[in-house]
Amino acid sequence: MRIAMLGTGVVGRALAVELARRGDDVVMGTRDPAGPPADELAALLDEHPGVSLAAFPDAVDGAELVMLAVGGLHAIDVVAGIGDDALDGLVIIDVSNPLDFSAGFPPTLSVCNTSSLGEQVQAAVPSARVVKALNTVNVEVMVDPTSVGAGDHDLIICGNDADAKSEVASFLRERFGWESIIDLGDITAARGTEMYLALWLRMLAALGTSRFNIRIVK
Amino acid sequence: MRIAMLGTGVVGRALAVELARRGDDVVMGTRDPAGPPADELAALLDEHPGVSLAAFPDAVDGAELVMLAVGGLHAIDVVAGIGDDALDGLVIIDVSNPLDFSAGFPPTLSVCNTSSLGEQVQAAVPSARVVKALNTVNVEVMVDPTSVGAGDHDLIICGNDADAKSEVASFLRERFGWESIIDLGDITAARGTEMYLALWLRMLAALGTSRFNIRIVK
Repeated sequence: MRIAMLGTGVVGRALAVELARRGDDVVMGTRDPAGPPADELAALLDEHPGVSLAAFPDAVDGAELVMLAVGGLHAIDVVAGIGDDALDGLVIIDVSNPLDFSAGFPPTLSVCNTSSLGEQVQAAVPSARVVKALNTVNVEVMVDPTSVGAGDHDLIICGNDADAKSEVASFLRERFGWESIIDLGDITAARGTEMYLALWLRMLAALGTSRFNIRIVK
Repeated sequence: MRIAMLGTGVVGRALAVELARRGDDVVMGTRDPAGPPADELAALLDEHPGVSLAAFPDAVDGAELVMLAVGGLHAIDVVAGIGDDALDGLVIIDVSNPLDFSAGFPPTLSVCNTSSLGEQVQAAVPSARVVKALNTVNVEVMVDPTSVGAGDHDLIICGNDADAKSEVASFLRERFGWESIIDLGDITAARGTEMYLALWLRMLAALGTSRFNIRIVK
């Protein structure tokens, strides 16, 4: 599958590598592909022929699926810059969190409570089909849920388009092995999964590891 | 144990009944104990001789433990009204959440992100030892964690005073059977457990039950 991976940071790189290993054709989107890539990105591109680099709009051109893995503070700029027409009908898996580290650790959220980044992304490109997913776990857990508690934990997703959520659930099951995916409702539920980050960050500190997730126990 | 239960709503009543059943002497605090109690409260007082009603300051007088179970929007007024001197050294289990239902369901939080109700309560009565606890689960789960998933889930607490947290953990284990209690750190971690409510409320809607909790899977 041709996948546009928007963002070349830790999350975008790890997702790109794992998808390329599984046979997907990944085009990583970046602001300025002409500039020299950072060392880690250059090494990644060398090592993985299935991953290439392009400007944001070019990365999306011909993509069957878009993953938004830029820093949360840049997410709206990036999708708005690509434009609603170019993203019309495309499924965007929004992995981003609105984390603002400007006052140190733990970060605060740049939007929460009465809105969410997921909602803002969907509003910025209304013709795209945004599914908030994977933002509640560390990247190592994203791509290998069985590495934590034998996979006995839940991924919580949300979005306005039922078909898009179903496609994303199948994709995450097939590519990464996510077995338990809970549909939390429409994109406003991203308030819940993003605000959970405040708890996640404290858990990270208390547990001393980012390799954890939650299981809903009924 | 003599326990001051601040708040006569659903949560305060259920906690008071369960504690009285286990032999505790519970004084429920209310704003105006001279007024006629609502029907449910009157029935409770009739049925449970171990539970009595008093004005907020009188409820705390002689108490060995305080539980703050008022609506979150009233929590600061209630503790500030009782006063720091009257609460000096006392452990307050802060069960409240800053839920604002004025715009309907789901509610928003009246404080979050850069502060929390737990922090505000601690700041309002600095000589008390506030432990945020139980606010992440429904009252039925609070008093009977084994009723959900055989108790295989976690209670997350926080507070500035290590001894107070240890006392609260013992209390919740002995009274209600909480086996797994995770100490999330100082009271600023209440931002995490309160903001989790945004996720909890969406889970409530998605699962169709309030009888659930999370387990941290490592």
